[in-house]
Amino acid sequence: MQLQTNDTIVALATAHGNAAIAVIRLSGLNAITVVEPFFYNKNLINKNLSNKKSHTVHFGIIYYQNVIIDEVLITIFKDANSYTGQNSVEVSCHGSVFIQQQLIQLFLSNGARMATAGEFTLRAFLNGKLDLSQAEAVADLIASNSALSHQVAMQQMRGGFSSKIKTLRDNLISFASLIELELDFSEEDVEFANRSDLRNLIVTITGIIQKLIGSFEVGNVIKNGIPVAIVGKPNAGKSTLLNVLLDDDRAIVSEIPGTTRDIIEDEITIDGVLFRFIDTAGLRTTTDVIEQIGVNKAFEVIKKSAIIIYLFDCHELSSGDLKLEIELLKDYIGTSQLVIVANKIDVEDLLELKKEFINYPQIIYISAKEHKYIDDLKLKLLNLFDTRTVDATDTIVTNARHVNSLKKANIALLKVHEGLKNNIVGDLLALDIRYTLDELGSITGEVTNENLLDSIFTKFCIGK
Amino acid sequence: MQLQTNDTIVALATAHGNAAIAVIRLSGLNAITVVEPFFYNKNLINKNLSNKKSHTVHFGIIYYQNVIIDEVLITIFKDANSYTGQNSVEVSCHGSVFIQQQLIQLFLSNGARMATAGEFTLRAFLNGKLDLSQAEAVADLIASNSALSHQVAMQQMRGGFSSKIKTLRDNLISFASLIELELDFSEEDVEFANRSDLRNLIVTITGIIQKLIGSFEVGNVIKNGIPVAIVGKPNAGKSTLLNVLLDDDRAIVSEIPGTTRDIIEDEITIDGVLFRFIDTAGLRTTTDVIEQIGVNKAFEVIKKSAIIIYLFDCHELSSGDLKLEIELLKDYIGTSQLVIVANKIDVEDLLELKKEFINYPQIIYISAKEHKYIDDLKLKLLNLFDTRTVDATDTIVTNARHVNSLKKANIALLKVHEGLKNNIVGDLLALDIRYTLDELGSITGEVTNENLLDSIFTKFCIGK
Repeated sequence: MQLQTNDTIVALATAHGNAAIAVIRLSGLNAITVVEPFFYNKNLINKNLSNKKSHTVHFGIIYYQNVIIDEVLITIFKDANSYTGQNSVEVSCHGSVFIQQQLIQLFLSNGARMATAGEFTLRAFLNGKLDLSQAEAVADLIASNSALSHQVAMQQMRGGFSSKIKTLRDNLISFASLIELELDFSEEDVEFANRSDLRNLIVTITGIIQKLIGSFEVGNVIKNGIPVAIVGKPNAGKSTLLNVLLDDDRAIVSEIPGTTRDIIEDEITIDGVLFRFIDTAGLRTTTDVIEQIGVNKAFEVIKKSAIIIYLFDCHELSSGDLKLEIELLKDYIGTSQLVIVANKIDVEDLLELKKEFINYPQIIYISAKEHKYIDDLKLKLLNLFDTRTVDATDTIVTNARHVNSLKKANIALLKVHEGLKNNIVGDLLALDIRYTLDELGSITGEVTNENLLDSIFTKFCIGK
Repeated sequence: MQLQTNDTIVALATAHGNAAIAVIRLSGLNAITVVEPFFYNKNLINKNLSNKKSHTVHFGIIYYQNVIIDEVLITIFKDANSYTGQNSVEVSCHGSVFIQQQLIQLFLSNGARMATAGEFTLRAFLNGKLDLSQAEAVADLIASNSALSHQVAMQQMRGGFSSKIKTLRDNLISFASLIELELDFSEEDVEFANRSDLRNLIVTITGIIQKLIGSFEVGNVIKNGIPVAIVGKPNAGKSTLLNVLLDDDRAIVSEIPGTTRDIIEDEITIDGVLFRFIDTAGLRTTTDVIEQIGVNKAFEVIKKSAIIIYLFDCHELSSGDLKLEIELLKDYIGTSQLVIVANKIDVEDLLELKKEFINYPQIIYISAKEHKYIDDLKLKLLNLFDTRTVDATDTIVTNARHVNSLKKANIALLKVHEGLKNNIVGDLLALDIRYTLDELGSITGEVTNENLLDSIFTKFCIGK
């Protein structure tokens, strides 16, 4: 981890592969002068870049040792006005992998070095352009694959979460200094910090912190998707249903030609909400599942799911069979939501079927193969976990590091609260308040260390 | 194929997938006003883009219906100063596929339409920014994967080939008009065009055209790689050798972190020259090969190769065996170059081996498995077909369409030449000269039609 920011870093910033254009990014004190000697006009006369204004674009040729490497557009960003808060250059070239390599090699030969993962954003943080939680949100934003995860990351990147944490911390900090001041006068037994005010403040702050901790459950679901398990006998049509849901999703995605996405198997976005289907391929029949619980991972699969779809072939099970199956399942569902789905229906016989299963009015009737009533199932899934009702402008914690710090802060504050009740001495209070401040400060990066930064930024992609 | 250029087109211009940044490109009369209503400053106040200067970059927020879609950098290109020769906008956003889709959808909703493959470059051609052969070179440049293919495409894109063709055509055009003028005075039996000068000109032009046609063989090799077949008995180590060559190549490519390339199996760049290894997996032993020639594709494989590597296990074959094998092969090699490679050598026994095969001083001794003397083989391959000695600033034809037109032009000119010898009448000469002019003009696009443009630009990627 490089905490100095003076040298010039370079990386490909756009996705790998051949394309119309690619962008190579440089940042550092000498970013402009690293590129300048290779930049020529159409008549192969060297062009000045240093004297150009920030936020201007220049057409020219990258030329070295009698070889024209590419015709490019170069954008100059100067000093604090760039993403990183220092001189930056973006070279927009023809999107040939060969050209990308040649250009990067050229800039490396003239004093730049390859950027490490997340190093541009690390520099933005070190130069005060972003706080730590905002920087983390940049990675979340790039990874966002649903309307909600996008909105939560955007809100965090724009400082919504940070300002909330800063307010809490600022409120606490004045008390901390008063209490620490008392320590200087400890022999005089003075109380600068009003204990009753402090208690009230702590109640307020822990209330907010606990609400933030509580939001992580939703936040995690928004970020990683709502875990859903489809269980049922082998002939129930589980994979057909999954494929139908996946195909629908892909069709929406591919409405825009020219865009694709990395298909992560069994992730499906329904109306902007991400559902993550957990592999239950190992499960044979529900009865088998339950017999094998404790010896295989089936229980874990169900436990991890927020929603369990029990799928059955409506021609195979009688109402009595279903009753038995559901009862066997129920003991293992815990707090998950159960959705019973009858598959392979004939639309003509639907009334007859509903009579058979009259005791289960909640059943959703579909034909996965014929793509019938799939929307009913989708609506049910959406209603069960309607994260759309989540106000994305509300502060939602999606980051395990943040929730961990919040939990530690919460415990420390509860100790302070307990201490106040028991009238313990100021120096013990001060210790826990300082600990709370450190934990809150680590979220936004006001308190930080190299290891923490390392663990955060190495998760980034190179070029960001 | 859209030959009108007034409407606004949009496409993702960078490679697919998540990355640090992605660039969405718009071009058209209203490109700026399509984006403008969604562009806001940090405080969510709408920002003007129309009044901004060409080649300037603007930071802001894309905002629609209370949702912040992204913080972006927008570059404005005005009128003739853009790549396409008309108003253009590049939106540099966070490289999330989700965000890319949202932004494109937004611009589509405000009057843009999805660009077809190559449509930005088609507009550059229609607006006179590039001629047709230059436009074709853009696609070649993006696809270029070796130093030579890159240089030839660059030379063509920068108009080297076009200007050569234009010169030929201009020289011919004045004669064509003189001869056509004669037709108007046909009853008066005048000769405005000096027949002897015309004959000389045609000799010069056909000489140049034939040289260009001849360059296509090298051009094709530069663009598509030098075809190499490795043949030999099954235990000779063909796939080990291929893997060793491939791994060497990949290692060079991956020296620059952050770049990858689409690995096309069996394409290997040695010292900037591309070699394409043709699959001979179907071949068993050379003897079998020859026995089966006529019934399987082996002969075709050998015929298509410029270089044939005959690989043998030095412990398996005696000098006599080798002689037999080579003799069997030789009849089928034609104009291909044969390289005999002894594999699985022990370095200690090398002298002994060389004694055994003293009649074959051209043998290259390697151990593919132990990666010994592989560089000797590489050097041999390079020397056999040293396209590096090709002067990339020479005009080299790499495009089958171009060579086709050149061949047609050549035939027509030879007819003119023949006609001059036989003193045929002006109107027959005029016909063939006009035909030549059309063929030459079709290369640069001075003479064109919709079908031709369609077949050229649909081979482009979308966004270029």
